[in-house]
Order: sequence, then structure tokens, then C-alpha cells
Amino acid sequence: MADKITSRSTDYAQWYNDLVLRGGLADYSAVRGCMVIKPYGFALWENMRDQMDRMFKDTGHVNAYFPLFVPRSFLEKEEGHAEGFAKECAVVTHYRLKANPAKKGELTVDPESKLEEELIIRPTSETVIWNAYRDWIQSYRDLPLLINQWANVVRWEMRTRLFLRTTEFLWQEGHTAHATADEAVEETRKMLDVYADFVETYMALPVMKGVKTANERFAGAVDTYCIEALMQDGKALQAGTSHFLGQNFSKAFDVKFLNKSNQQEFVWATSWGTSTRLIGALVMAHSDDEGLVLPPRIAPIQVVIVPIYRGDEQKAVIDQKVKEMMQSLRDLGIRVKYDDSENNRPGWKFAEWELKGVPLRMAIGPKDLENNVVELARRDTKTKSSVSMDGIAFYVQGLLLEIQQNLFNRAKEYRDTHITEVSSYAEFKKVLEEKGGFVSAHWDGSPETEEKIKEETKATIRCIPLNNPREDGVCIYSGRPSKERVLFALAY
Amino acid sequence: MADKITSRSTDYAQWYNDLVLRGGLADYSAVRGCMVIKPYGFALWENMRDQMDRMFKDTGHVNAYFPLFVPRSFLEKEEGHAEGFAKECAVVTHYRLKANPAKKGELTVDPESKLEEELIIRPTSETVIWNAYRDWIQSYRDLPLLINQWANVVRWEMRTRLFLRTTEFLWQEGHTAHATADEAVEETRKMLDVYADFVETYMALPVMKGVKTANERFAGAVDTYCIEALMQDGKALQAGTSHFLGQNFSKAFDVKFLNKSNQQEFVWATSWGTSTRLIGALVMAHSDDEGLVLPPRIAPIQVVIVPIYRGDEQKAVIDQKVKEMMQSLRDLGIRVKYDDSENNRPGWKFAEWELKGVPLRMAIGPKDLENNVVELARRDTKTKSSVSMDGIAFYVQGLLLEIQQNLFNRAKEYRDTHITEVSSYAEFKKVLEEKGGFVSAHWDGSPETEEKIKEETKATIRCIPLNNPREDGVCIYSGRPSKERVLFALAY
Repeated sequence: MADKITSRSTDYAQWYNDLVLRGGLADYSAVRGCMVIKPYGFALWENMRDQMDRMFKDTGHVNAYFPLFVPRSFLEKEEGHAEGFAKECAVVTHYRLKANPAKKGELTVDPESKLEEELIIRPTSETVIWNAYRDWIQSYRDLPLLINQWANVVRWEMRTRLFLRTTEFLWQEGHTAHATADEAVEETRKMLDVYADFVETYMALPVMKGVKTANERFAGAVDTYCIEALMQDGKALQAGTSHFLGQNFSKAFDVKFLNKSNQQEFVWATSWGTSTRLIGALVMAHSDDEGLVLPPRIAPIQVVIVPIYRGDEQKAVIDQKVKEMMQSLRDLGIRVKYDDSENNRPGWKFAEWELKGVPLRMAIGPKDLENNVVELARRDTKTKSSVSMDGIAFYVQGLLLEIQQNLFNRAKEYRDTHITEVSSYAEFKKVLEEKGGFVSAHWDGSPETEEKIKEETKATIRCIPLNNPREDGVCIYSGRPSKERVLFALAY
Repeated sequence: MADKITSRSTDYAQWYNDLVLRGGLADYSAVRGCMVIKPYGFALWENMRDQMDRMFKDTGHVNAYFPLFVPRSFLEKEEGHAEGFAKECAVVTHYRLKANPAKKGELTVDPESKLEEELIIRPTSETVIWNAYRDWIQSYRDLPLLINQWANVVRWEMRTRLFLRTTEFLWQEGHTAHATADEAVEETRKMLDVYADFVETYMALPVMKGVKTANERFAGAVDTYCIEALMQDGKALQAGTSHFLGQNFSKAFDVKFLNKSNQQEFVWATSWGTSTRLIGALVMAHSDDEGLVLPPRIAPIQVVIVPIYRGDEQKAVIDQKVKEMMQSLRDLGIRVKYDDSENNRPGWKFAEWELKGVPLRMAIGPKDLENNVVELARRDTKTKSSVSMDGIAFYVQGLLLEIQQNLFNRAKEYRDTHITEVSSYAEFKKVLEEKGGFVSAHWDGSPETEEKIKEETKATIRCIPLNNPREDGVCIYSGRPSKERVLFALAY
């Protein structure tokens, strides 16, 4: 173990970076704003991706793959969409390099390879996909079309942070086509539920479901639904969005279908996405000053076994016992690793696997062997217990579920105690500054008020919660009448 | 069913395109040379990818993800590599578009967003990865590093064909780092074996394993190993490559490690890749004039069930029987689809699933019900048989294995009868023209002769087979002495 990681109270942002880098999740790359997802971080992403993929397939979706390049003219077709993405996109202008005549050994852009029309690296794929759908959809019989894509996208962000905001990131984007607006809205909300279910059940992270205000809406959407999670520093993080696109893209790309009454009609659309940003949320929601704390359901390693021994003879006996236990654990589908590397001492290994957030550590030494027990240490509570080797696999299975539930409960308690109703702007600012979390307040519904509050406090409206109770009140900023509270927060 | 697909004898290239497009594997896109992989094609790729991924993990590899962008200066660092890729790469020069002042509603590149150093879309990732490895590798304890990446890459090809050669394609690229040359060579050959095993066992496609000549080597490699498959038109197709990179990239990126003797040494490298091109090989190797023929092990749908009935009452009885059979098939892990859509008649469905290459079709009508049988039709042999419903799942399981084996045997027989030994240049040209396949001939080992033969006949040396028998002979072109035969062919 090298130096201790920065504590949350010392510097929350630095603590986060320390965890990501030293926990082996990701690394900076030579390209501005791009990161390398390291094997341990990628194994975590694979578990998250595979589970989401199963949930998408269970709800009738199929995967496909569309081109990385968006012709400039495609971006122009949907005005709101263009405004949202034109300012931060990587532009391919040429298709060849040549030897630089001015500098030996260097390459330079070959001016003769200039493209007639520039290509944008996809920041999202609505345009490319709706251009394809024009050929795929003729009649109501071709609908609904329920397609998802796992891909890399590029948004040229000026300020980047590992996982939370990177120039290139990995994500999935669902793009569905429907015969009616109702059906499209239903799909939009269904996928929001799938996201919430995934984040809560697998990432152990409670979320608020809601609708975005017009200001915060996806560029080109009629309505943007979102799930919002709360981090330990009291800031909110948007964990997934699901958009009802109306007929905006079908009109931009002229995608019509023959409905049951034999009339041509524009198709109704949705899109929805989650990304590697979720890993950032996971890190910030559960981890502590010793390192990562990963929920068992998606942890790359659920149980690590560390042998404690002197000499080859003891080691051989332990090896044999561990081998049996690992088989019984694997038979139950538990991901287990035996760390018997000889380069490091047990204490070093304990700290290392703690840093990496493995939910359960099992230590086994000669005394344990004598007593037919192992020592189990929980990462979430740091409690240790001595447990009989008989039936250890079922015991571990139960304990992993308990840890998963405990992480969720802990995060939910934090979240629930960090939703504060306020009735004045002064109170609003005080809560934001001193307590953080979601601030529930009346708002007059105008983009101008929303902007002013953002300018003055940096807080944004995270969402108008679904099934929000009606309640008469006055806007904390303008004093104008309001019919419901909305959730404000500082956000990532 | 629309018009019949083009037959192989009429126009092999058109037949191939018909299968890919009408079989629902892929579609052209609006971007030159890029394709859309449609859901059915992507499901096939998922099965191939997941199986390869399992094989990589079983051989100790882990996945990671590296940036899409390669800085121009990285490409310059390894001379051979730069020469190989500079001429066909997409170049990002700017990071912003703005409203075009000259044309309302249009966007134009913002000249103020010009990048100081251009970024290339990765054509392959050696440079980016070895730049990262410099920080990851310090001592022999950090080795070997066995990392794979699933990613999209871009090579600006002038003539493209669906799956076989596209500007953007999906692939995996393994990049490993080792302490010794021997270990790196061993890894290179091990991964060649993994590829051969995958292609033969899962794609039912026999391959020749060999080494490339210097002319055909990967840009930056010391040695390129390959597997070569034979298509039904007698042309060869490179199905995978595994490169021993020596210390070329560790030297270019200054990646050293402290060896066990406490000395600094450059790291030894390999890289290996397969791509969506394999889907093209699959299509061309097994399919026929009725459509695709997919090997059961990777077919998205292994069994399709088509009900034949009049009226709801018959349908209800069939539905019940099918439901039971589907459960028993799924219990054995068989991928089954019940096509009871009411839009099309059974005959249409038969042709459609034949076009899509589903290995087994099961039809069930009122007479079958009475006799407790179903009709099974094999896609590979077009034979039909009436089979008892009792124990149908195990019967189907066995039949799928038989189909898999039959496809392999058929392809192997074709391949084995299309390796022709020749002893003169006249004979060589005659075989190439009239019979096709691999032509086994003596060659003097010089790049010049290889070039001449290529210029005159378009044939290239596909490989020098592994464990090639030594045999004295004379080069068919130059008449100079030769110690072994090599395999020539026309190739994709």
C-alpha cells in the first residue's frame, strides 16, 4: 500500500479521484478528457452492462449497431438537437495523413483528402438511426421497433472528470419507434422504471424519478424523464434519462407509416440512455475513506480469500480447504478470488482488497483450520466474525444479500434525510449551503426564475417528481403562485 | 418473400449482398463505407463475441477500454506502423461547429476550434495502449499483462463491402506484454490456436494456420500468424491474425521493466484480432441459393416452430403443445422461436426462415397432433422427417449437433479438395483460373517474386503453413531453389 487516500472531509473531489485511480477502475489517458477504463473498472462495467442488457431483452428490446459518424447535414435537420450538440463535437474533416515535407518523420493532414461534408463523431445517435428507420418502417406492422445500441460516444467537454464527465464515454442508447403517442410515452416511462429498478436493485442506490423542466430537457425531446441519485457530499447526480421525442425526429427524417386506417402518419419516438457515468455514481454513493465499497450484485469479486500461514506445509493444508470452499461458492454462482500471491503479506492484502471494495474478505489460518472456522470481514460494516466452514457457501450467499440490502438502506436513509422542504429563498440558500441534498421548493414554472436561481446559487431543478402531490404555494424566488414543489440541488 | 435472391452461379458477389441485406444481417448507411448491423446480424455477432470472450477469459485475459482517439504524434512513433495506417485514417481536426453565416440553418466548422494536434480515429490501438503500458509496467512482477478490448475501429477503405471491408467495423484486439521473447511468441501462437478453435468449432469453418510473408505482415509486427479460410467461390479469407511485435512498440513508447536480474529491459509484445469480417466469412462459407445457412452453435435462433391450422380452436390446441415443447427445448438451452404471426401463411414463413438460415424448422398441424409427431426440416440438407413429440427436446439437441458437424465436414471436404499442388507457373495460373482454392507452390522467398506474381495473377501468399514439411523444389516463377511450398490464393 502506498500513501493513504485523501479523506472525504479533507477533499471530497480528491478522495473520489484517489478511489478511481488507486482502486484500479480507470486512468487518465494522453488524449485530453479521455480515460482508460482499466480491467477492474471494466469488469464492473461488464456486470452492470450485462444486467441492464438482460433487462432490456426481457422487455422486448434487441441490440443493433449504427455508424460512429454523423454527417454534418444530419445534425442540422432537427434544430433543437443541432443547437444542443454542435458546440461540443469532434469533427472529422480529412481521411488521410501524409509525410510532412517540412519535418522529417512527422505526418501531416493531406489537404487533398478533405471530405466534401464533415463527419461528426456521434454525441448520440438519433439522427443516424432515424435516417435508417425511414427505410425500415412502412406500415403499422413494422411497429413498434424496439432497438438498443451499446456504443462509445464523444462530447467535447471543457471540464472533465473520470467517469462523471469524459470526452469519450461508453453508454447504451435505446431508440424506439411507435404508432401512437400514448404507446411512446408508455415506453419512455417503462424504460425509466427499468433504469430505476437496475440502479436500486443492483447498484443499491435509491433514486428519485421525475420529469425535467424545459431548460434541462434533452435537445430534441418533448419530455425528458430522469432518475436522480444523491451522493455523499449532498450533490445530486443524474443516473439515467428517458426521452419522449414526439414526432420531432420522424418529421426531420421523414419517417412515415401507413396506419390501420390506411393513412400516412409520422412515427412516434423515444430514446433513453445510461452510461459509464453510473460508475462514478456508484463510487461516490457507497465508498468510504478506506476505499471503494462495491455492492455484491455487481462487484467483480464478491469474496476474496487470504491465507495466513508459515511454511509450505501449512499452506498446502489451507490450499486444500480453500479449493473445496471455492468450488462450493462457485457452485452457487459466487465470484471468488484466492489471493495467495507470495509478493505481499496478509495485512497488505487486507488493505488492498478493502481499497478495491470487495464485499467480503475471508481469512483462514492454522488456528481456523483447527477449529474448522474462517474469519469473515464485511466491507460495508467492517465487522468480523468467525464462521464454521460447514455450509459456508450458503452462509456467504446470505451475507452477500444482507450486505447488498444494507448498502441500499444506508444510502436510502441518507437520501431520505436529505430532502428538505423550504418555504423561503433565504431558507433555500441556507439548506443548500449547510446541509445539501434535495431541496423541495415551490417554483413559478418559468425558465427565467429557474435561470436566476441557478445563476445565484448554482442549484438546478433536478426534476419534478412523478406522482407529485398538488399543493398550493408561492414561488420561493418570485412569490408567484405555484401548484407543486420541485426538487432543486447542486449537481454533478 | 420478395423476388428470389441471385444464385451463386449467376453472380456470386450479388448473391452475397442479397443474403446480407435480405437475410436481415446488415444494411448500407448514409455514411460512405459504413454499415448498420441490424438486430438479426447483431444477435449473431453477440453469440460469436460472447463465445470468444469466454475463450479469452479462460486463457487468462481480461477486458479493458482505451480511447478512440490516437494523437497524430503517437502514430509517428513506430515507423512501419505509421506507413501502414497513415494513408487510410479518419482525422479529427476541430471540436466545434457553429451556425454557418453564409447559409441559414446550416452548420460549419468553427475555425477557432482547431486542435493543436490532430486526432486519428483508431485504426488499431497499439500506440494508445503501449503509451498507457509505460505507466503500468515497472517490474517483472507486473508481467505478463494480458488485456483484450472489444471496440470499433476505422480504416478509410476506398472499396468497401458489407462485413468484408467496411470503413468502420467492430472487433476485438488483444494486447499483451511479456518479460521474454519466448513467452510472447508462445502467447501469439496460443491465441492463433484459440482463434482456430473458435472458427472451426463454433463457425464450422476449417482453417489453415500459418505465418504471413514479410509483404503481408501487420504494420509494426515482427511476425504475423494467421488463420485462412476458403469460401465457396474458391477465394481465401483471412479470418484472424496474431502478431508477435517483438520490442517495436515498447521501444517506440519507452516501456521498460526491471527484470529478475535487476536490469532494465524493453517489454515484449503481442497483439491479435478478429472482427465482424468473420460474419462475411460465415455467410460465404455455408450459405446456398435459398439463403443463409447458420451453424447451430452461433445461430440466433436454432429452432423455429411454425403452426399449421384452420381456426382458433386448432390454434389453441397447437399453442398448448408448442408451449410445452418450447419449455423443454429451453430447459436444454436451445434458442427457439414460435412464429405464430397471423400476417403470413406457413409457406411464406418457411421461405423466410430458410432465407434467415435457421438450422431447424419444426412444423406442427392437426394431423401431426393426432399422430403425436412434428415435422422437422433441416436447413443444411433440406431433408424433412416426422418425429415423435416424446423426448423431442433431446432429439433436437442431437440433431443440432449433427447439423453443426455436417456443416464443418462439408466445408472441410470442399477445402481439402481445393488445395492443389502445382509445379509450374502455367499450371499455377490454370488452377487459379479454372479451379480456385489454395495453390501450393514453391516460392523463392523474395518479396519481388511475390509482388510479380500478385501483379500478374492477383494471387497473394496467404500463408506459410505451420509445421510445413521441408521439401526441395524450385520457385514456380523464378526457378530459384526453394525449401518449402507456400499457399497462394485469390483472396478477399
